[in-house]
Amino acid sequence: MTYCAATMLDAGIVFASDSRTNAGVDNISTFKKMKVFERPGDRVLVTLCSGNLAITQATLSHLESVMRRNDGSPHLFSVASMYDVAELIGNALREVRHRDAPFLQQSNVDSGASFIVGGQIAGEEQRLFMVYAEGNFIEATAETPYFQIGEVKYGKPILDRVISAGTSLEEAVKCVLVSFDSTMRSNLSVGLPIDLLCYEKNSLAVTKVRRFDEKDEYMRNLRSQWSEGLRKVFGSLPNFEWN
Amino acid sequence: MTYCAATMLDAGIVFASDSRTNAGVDNISTFKKMKVFERPGDRVLVTLCSGNLAITQATLSHLESVMRRNDGSPHLFSVASMYDVAELIGNALREVRHRDAPFLQQSNVDSGASFIVGGQIAGEEQRLFMVYAEGNFIEATAETPYFQIGEVKYGKPILDRVISAGTSLEEAVKCVLVSFDSTMRSNLSVGLPIDLLCYEKNSLAVTKVRRFDEKDEYMRNLRSQWSEGLRKVFGSLPNFEWN
Repeated sequence: MTYCAATMLDAGIVFASDSRTNAGVDNISTFKKMKVFERPGDRVLVTLCSGNLAITQATLSHLESVMRRNDGSPHLFSVASMYDVAELIGNALREVRHRDAPFLQQSNVDSGASFIVGGQIAGEEQRLFMVYAEGNFIEATAETPYFQIGEVKYGKPILDRVISAGTSLEEAVKCVLVSFDSTMRSNLSVGLPIDLLCYEKNSLAVTKVRRFDEKDEYMRNLRSQWSEGLRKVFGSLPNFEWN
Repeated sequence: MTYCAATMLDAGIVFASDSRTNAGVDNISTFKKMKVFERPGDRVLVTLCSGNLAITQATLSHLESVMRRNDGSPHLFSVASMYDVAELIGNALREVRHRDAPFLQQSNVDSGASFIVGGQIAGEEQRLFMVYAEGNFIEATAETPYFQIGEVKYGKPILDRVISAGTSLEEAVKCVLVSFDSTMRSNLSVGLPIDLLCYEKNSLAVTKVRRFDEKDEYMRNLRSQWSEGLRKVFGSLPNFEWN
């Protein structure tokens, strides 16, 4: 499994992904699920992915090969809008699944995969999209300022409680990390390290990116303080009086 | 959807169920998903159910008709062990699904349903079981002292953090209600009122049962205090320093 989340705020976009890949519980590996395409001053694109790893890797490889070929076909560094970026990813995903899915089906392997992609291209506002396994996509709005993919439910309540468009980047970073903490406690198939990228609106550059692993002091501290704080709040709730 | 949970503690068992039944978001009704079979001094059996409502109702009706017939066939008030109770439910569920599932399949309707059943029969310890849609079942142990059915993920983190065999009944009641709060915030298809029953070990009687609806002052207070407390703890977490 996987857990990825991205929150789009007035101040910027926070992206985060776990890095556990498993084919059954006896075959666990670490793969980075965040990929950054950056040309400072022109664009920052960040993709997070979930689902069949061969499919998501092939989709990204396909997008990169079109960039390298540079034969006039639209690619991630040539298109003028984030909408076009989402469409490129959706089309690439469709192409890869069209090619590979029949073979996977023969072994009853799911070829499903989905992406979150966000960032900013010069001349446009920052934008955030979720690309479904079928290649279609939706865009985040002020009313729904976050997307999640993978094992999304355990970590959703804290996002629902905290995140709104006006949330600061600092608060959103904390909230996303707490959301990962809740997910990792309840689901073994989501694990550290967490890759986190905090994009500051209109910067058109990646300035804040960080990997949080088991030994990371901030993350350990955050997890224990949150756990302790929850227990304290819980302890202070009034008991129900039966009479 | 549905959310039901039961926690088995050294001091007793806490059962809770929501009461929203929906066939699509435009067809929502209220049904009690908790059923109590009690003969004071002899036994208390509590069932919670999730899944296809016609299937779970038919299963319970079947169990009740065997009791009424009283022709020597084993039934809920005649068997000597909670294990036998779980088996009766599993068998009844199999029978009903065997009869109805083919018709449901013709309309692509899922006949899946599951039960939590727990309580105590004189001469035996209190016990708690989860009966799967296939009619097989598992029993709660000190290491895994709770079961959930239905929309289980949103409300699992708080159970994982708080519940252990040594948790008091008062704390468990609070924890289960908070677990319902998290679920209802993130999933519209789980809703108030909540039916809650707190069985005190070896009492062999139902003494504490309560319905919490929208207007219930304790529940409203609990929800707002929990929400406020979470925000306070969250606010006190240290920001991540990027430099």
